[in-house]
Amino acid sequence: MSITADDVVLLEAATNAQGDLVRALKADLKAGKPGITKEDVTAAVEVLKERKASLAALLKDLQAQGGATGVVNKEETRRILNDALERRLFVVPSFRIYGGVSGLFDLGPPGCAIKANLLAFWRQHFVVNESMLEVECPAVTPEPVLKASGHVDRFTDLMVTDTVTNEPFRADHLLEDALEKIMEDPKESAERKKEALNLKTIIDELDEKQLGEQLKNYNITAPETGNPISDPYPFNLMFATQIGPSGYMKGFLRPETAQGIFTNFRDLYYFNGGKLPFAAAQIGESYRNEISPKAGLLRVRQFTQAEIEHFVNPSDKAHHKFKEVANVELSLYGREQQMGESKKPVKKTMKAAVDEGMINNETLAYYMARTHLFLEAIGVDIRRLRFRQHLTHEMAHYACDCWDAEIECSYGWTECVGIADRSAFDLKAHAVASKTDLDAFEAYAKPVVVEKLEAAPNKQLIGKALKGDGKIAMEVMATMSQEGLAKLQSDLASGGASITLPDGRVVALESAWVVVKTVQKKETGRNFTPGVIEPSFGIGRIMYCMWEHCLYTRDGDDQKIVFRFTPLSAPIKCTVFPLLNKDAYNDFATALGTELSVGGISNTLDTTGVSIGKKYARTDELGVPFAVTVDGQTLEDKSVTMRERDSTKQIRVPSKDVVGILQKLCALRSTFTWKDALAKYPAQEAGGGDKEPSSSSDAEKKDKRANKPAKNANADSKPKVEGIPADRFNHVSWEGSLFAKPA
Amino acid sequence: MSITADDVVLLEAATNAQGDLVRALKADLKAGKPGITKEDVTAAVEVLKERKASLAALLKDLQAQGGATGVVNKEETRRILNDALERRLFVVPSFRIYGGVSGLFDLGPPGCAIKANLLAFWRQHFVVNESMLEVECPAVTPEPVLKASGHVDRFTDLMVTDTVTNEPFRADHLLEDALEKIMEDPKESAERKKEALNLKTIIDELDEKQLGEQLKNYNITAPETGNPISDPYPFNLMFATQIGPSGYMKGFLRPETAQGIFTNFRDLYYFNGGKLPFAAAQIGESYRNEISPKAGLLRVRQFTQAEIEHFVNPSDKAHHKFKEVANVELSLYGREQQMGESKKPVKKTMKAAVDEGMINNETLAYYMARTHLFLEAIGVDIRRLRFRQHLTHEMAHYACDCWDAEIECSYGWTECVGIADRSAFDLKAHAVASKTDLDAFEAYAKPVVVEKLEAAPNKQLIGKALKGDGKIAMEVMATMSQEGLAKLQSDLASGGASITLPDGRVVALESAWVVVKTVQKKETGRNFTPGVIEPSFGIGRIMYCMWEHCLYTRDGDDQKIVFRFTPLSAPIKCTVFPLLNKDAYNDFATALGTELSVGGISNTLDTTGVSIGKKYARTDELGVPFAVTVDGQTLEDKSVTMRERDSTKQIRVPSKDVVGILQKLCALRSTFTWKDALAKYPAQEAGGGDKEPSSSSDAEKKDKRANKPAKNANADSKPKVEGIPADRFNHVSWEGSLFAKPA
Repeated sequence: MSITADDVVLLEAATNAQGDLVRALKADLKAGKPGITKEDVTAAVEVLKERKASLAALLKDLQAQGGATGVVNKEETRRILNDALERRLFVVPSFRIYGGVSGLFDLGPPGCAIKANLLAFWRQHFVVNESMLEVECPAVTPEPVLKASGHVDRFTDLMVTDTVTNEPFRADHLLEDALEKIMEDPKESAERKKEALNLKTIIDELDEKQLGEQLKNYNITAPETGNPISDPYPFNLMFATQIGPSGYMKGFLRPETAQGIFTNFRDLYYFNGGKLPFAAAQIGESYRNEISPKAGLLRVRQFTQAEIEHFVNPSDKAHHKFKEVANVELSLYGREQQMGESKKPVKKTMKAAVDEGMINNETLAYYMARTHLFLEAIGVDIRRLRFRQHLTHEMAHYACDCWDAEIECSYGWTECVGIADRSAFDLKAHAVASKTDLDAFEAYAKPVVVEKLEAAPNKQLIGKALKGDGKIAMEVMATMSQEGLAKLQSDLASGGASITLPDGRVVALESAWVVVKTVQKKETGRNFTPGVIEPSFGIGRIMYCMWEHCLYTRDGDDQKIVFRFTPLSAPIKCTVFPLLNKDAYNDFATALGTELSVGGISNTLDTTGVSIGKKYARTDELGVPFAVTVDGQTLEDKSVTMRERDSTKQIRVPSKDVVGILQKLCALRSTFTWKDALAKYPAQEAGGGDKEPSSSSDAEKKDKRANKPAKNANADSKPKVEGIPADRFNHVSWEGSLFAKPA
Repeated sequence: MSITADDVVLLEAATNAQGDLVRALKADLKAGKPGITKEDVTAAVEVLKERKASLAALLKDLQAQGGATGVVNKEETRRILNDALERRLFVVPSFRIYGGVSGLFDLGPPGCAIKANLLAFWRQHFVVNESMLEVECPAVTPEPVLKASGHVDRFTDLMVTDTVTNEPFRADHLLEDALEKIMEDPKESAERKKEALNLKTIIDELDEKQLGEQLKNYNITAPETGNPISDPYPFNLMFATQIGPSGYMKGFLRPETAQGIFTNFRDLYYFNGGKLPFAAAQIGESYRNEISPKAGLLRVRQFTQAEIEHFVNPSDKAHHKFKEVANVELSLYGREQQMGESKKPVKKTMKAAVDEGMINNETLAYYMARTHLFLEAIGVDIRRLRFRQHLTHEMAHYACDCWDAEIECSYGWTECVGIADRSAFDLKAHAVASKTDLDAFEAYAKPVVVEKLEAAPNKQLIGKALKGDGKIAMEVMATMSQEGLAKLQSDLASGGASITLPDGRVVALESAWVVVKTVQKKETGRNFTPGVIEPSFGIGRIMYCMWEHCLYTRDGDDQKIVFRFTPLSAPIKCTVFPLLNKDAYNDFATALGTELSVGGISNTLDTTGVSIGKKYARTDELGVPFAVTVDGQTLEDKSVTMRERDSTKQIRVPSKDVVGILQKLCALRSTFTWKDALAKYPAQEAGGGDKEPSSSSDAEKKDKRANKPAKNANADSKPKVEGIPADRFNHVSWEGSLFAKPA
């Protein structure tokens, strides 16, 4: 039996509905609601267990079939993740003390550190590596710019309102909610469920009229009030504002950073010596006034974009570094795969994809491969990454080819990067609207001689006949297009020639006044509007998907959260723990932390008095890849233990080697791995650094042992390098967090 | 004779006016305007020369007196600077192809690189060094947050409108323009000029009514139309917008980043283990909808702020790192100096300033000193930096003490950083508005016993008499303030006691129902609202002032612009030049550039065919501190020349030493200077690297000499390290800039 993702969706909906039922029954039972018995709850829990087991089996089969990896329990994943993100201040709802605003979020210290890491790497991987020209433009944008780009007229979502209360809703969301209810309702027929699912999958493609029909078809009313709703109508998603006082100038917050690059094209082209191709980039905030944002961190009203505009001569989209990525293999979900039976992406090298014509050109493929490498380096699970080609009807008429990097997370396959060949659309639109020449010039290898029509007026005759208009008429003829001249030529031959003056008057021309003839012209090159290939990154979405991919629980225990961040992404690279909260231990740890900072390894020191196990748990929750513990033996021989987060294995290393080992482990293109470290240094035995004394009397004993050489150690353990501080999280105690769970 | 800055202002205005006259006369003469003779122009030029000489002499005297350094020719400085900034795309007006929007600017590639350097150093110098908690909040902010902070009601400028056309103007600017005209007008009396100058200096302090009176007093009408103007009225400077559709929620773009820190205080306090003091920081965009922005880059509508909120226990504003800055000496322009005769700042160490009470507390002084060190490191001329204390009437009623770091530039002394002790105002305002507890808790060293009044009701009697209201009345008594209880106590004694229930009803109390008595209570600590010390940095203003301080012209030639950026701030640290545009030279230079990149030295390669002198001029214009030239000798012995930008001195060094030397020269706290490099390596003689062949036949000769060993050199000069690219400006040719001056 072939299983499809649809089967999973249906069963998952039923499982979630059953979960809701169980929670409701439990609450009713606890509240003493009459007619609810313990047996009712038990029976409902049994059904839930069965559905969960079936779902797990189905997903396993689906994976065996080679389908999507799937997220076994989406709601559970999200609950655990969001709890960890809020508790450790990765991210919190903005303005929470005022009740919050949906679609707006704040980053706390670890969130800021991770984002800074991602952006620094993005700049290195794209801007520096490709010698791109970086620009930074304001978010406040005057209306004509966004009128030219099409956003004023077309950047809309369909909205409906409650006809009584005027409350607004996103039209497709209301339909979607109704369809989901049908899919979850045990009383609905299988046929009707299937119909609902089918409609749900194409919901994004319904136009204003079709969506209105479906809303009527399913008898959809306003949530809560049950009032009738209006027909859907477009709502512009840009935040509007006024620049200067009193309606002086209408403006918007930019919905994307790209337009700022286009408006600077002419300067950048000259800055680049008038040569193509070149790429420009911008990292910055963009704004979309969503009607009613759901989907947590994936659909927000303010977000960070990193966009590239790679300007090319449309007749040559080869990329000079393509050979570097020719053999990179991507998971490509092309039009053929989406429209065909398999519904599965194919693995293909960039060279093969371009040669076969699956990807339109080398530059597009180059950026797709570079995007894949970027996402892999920051810790996205590339088994859950695919590049989906836009179907023909999804693309704008001017676009050549578009691919979205989609990452699978608990919300499904999520568009995180769009890579589009937009041809010359944007520059042409701005050239017309701003009345500015945004063309590039291509010099021919050697001048070519072309034949052209040219008007040769008899100045005397025209001047005499037309007086003042004669000069104007000759100017009009001098700037006529080749088509215009061809028509004039034949009109002159047939005797009915005329031209239109700039003020609209039509003037008849006698055949004697002008001759249109073919002349030979030498041309040294041609003007053209450059095409543009646009990779556009949504940093927040990428970060969220990365967080989900990196999340796991230790020993299946929901209380033991771990993030398997790569050293590149991790907010801190190493934690330094004194095993005991004593001066000798703390001084040694502080000195080591300072050395790490000087060596470029961001680190934090945890000198609180809690157990080493609890300290490891705290550092795991922040995804810190390495931990160094200063213990009794350290004070004797200056060796420390080093622990790797995911294997939890430990080695004992001389403290003077620590900085070097960590530098090698954290370096971007390093070949030195934790396995190499394990091979080089002795394993730390149980009862050593990782195990703290289990009772206070043990602690006392250990402490006494440690105290013996403490004086000498103390003398040596003063900070060796001054002036460079430890990391931002240094001295921050994790105790007393607002969200801390009871021990 | 004592010279004052006022004398300079007046003479400068007269000089500028004469300059305008000369330009107008020249244009008239050229246009052949009747009645204008060559002699008229010559005479006017003579007057201009005299005034310029007098001005220079006056400034010199003023400097000798110890007054301000002065900017000898403000308009000239600005013209040269702005020309260089635009030509090399440091900064350009935003949306220029659409005519631009005043107060909005784009950064181009060198501007982006410098800003990234400043922000990275700010993060290092403040966030990392002080273990601050960084946050990132959205700019879109709901109204209640900015209502609580006072911005909705009070963040205004005074505006007037043309009563006929409704065109808006900033009221103080109109008055200022009128006063400047008087000061420049030779027909006005010295007395009236002095009066105008005096009014101009206090213009910021005029309130709505006073400003209106002065506008009438000087008969000011709308510019251009000459129509009457309205009375001044306040205009709110925040950009307003709507969050979500249809008036659902009013919002603004934040006018400062600080509020996002305050709204997160509770989470951050718990994150910090419930301990004070701690500091939080935010770097981000802020927005101010200026009525009619002038002053170029200093008054803009969107700008980057970096703000710190250092939360303290108000009874203890000591700073644990104060000793590190105790001996740092600042130029302090305190209240006493401003109000007294001297009008000159004093030099004082932080220790002395705090001990004498000039600066309110250690934390404030600590941040002032750290700010001074920050500005010095990025290249601000600290002789043109002063810390000006707010006069008592300038400060908000709640503030303890405020100091502005002011940098002198061609626009005068410019506020670039504000460092304010704002006491508990902000947190208290948000606590009230959001109904959230934003207090901190201070545990006493040991519990203290305090005497308190307490109401002891007789439950039975009250319950019997008041029925259902009895319970409510007892709750009211249990939560009464000490003052309320004292009053109740005396009222009970006099027999006229009553209490007010939550619904407003007043209930009489009989003496037998309740006893108010003094009891002893053990208290373990106290709740309080933390105070806050706020250093707030305007990154754009700092960057502009730094640019002005770093600008100079080589040999007094306006065409030879140099920026003396410190290695920290410079957009690129080193340029690599092949002396000739030949493969052997280019390959060696490319390999060296790659090595520099790997070594963390951002660099650019200039392989265009222009002369070495022109190449140096280009690199000077970007403020690149070092240049390395690959010449004929390089191909023989692998040595290169290295040139320092400001001294233009050159040394010859083995190419293998280049990375190490540059790393030492560019390191933040390095003691290795260019002088040390000069001492260590032989000077490059004239006719070597710096002098390119002056004619093509010379070039041929040199080239032939270079060609001899080229084959061997070629084999060696392949890029030695792969995978790491050169800097962002690599392969960028400076030819053909839109703004390039004719050669």
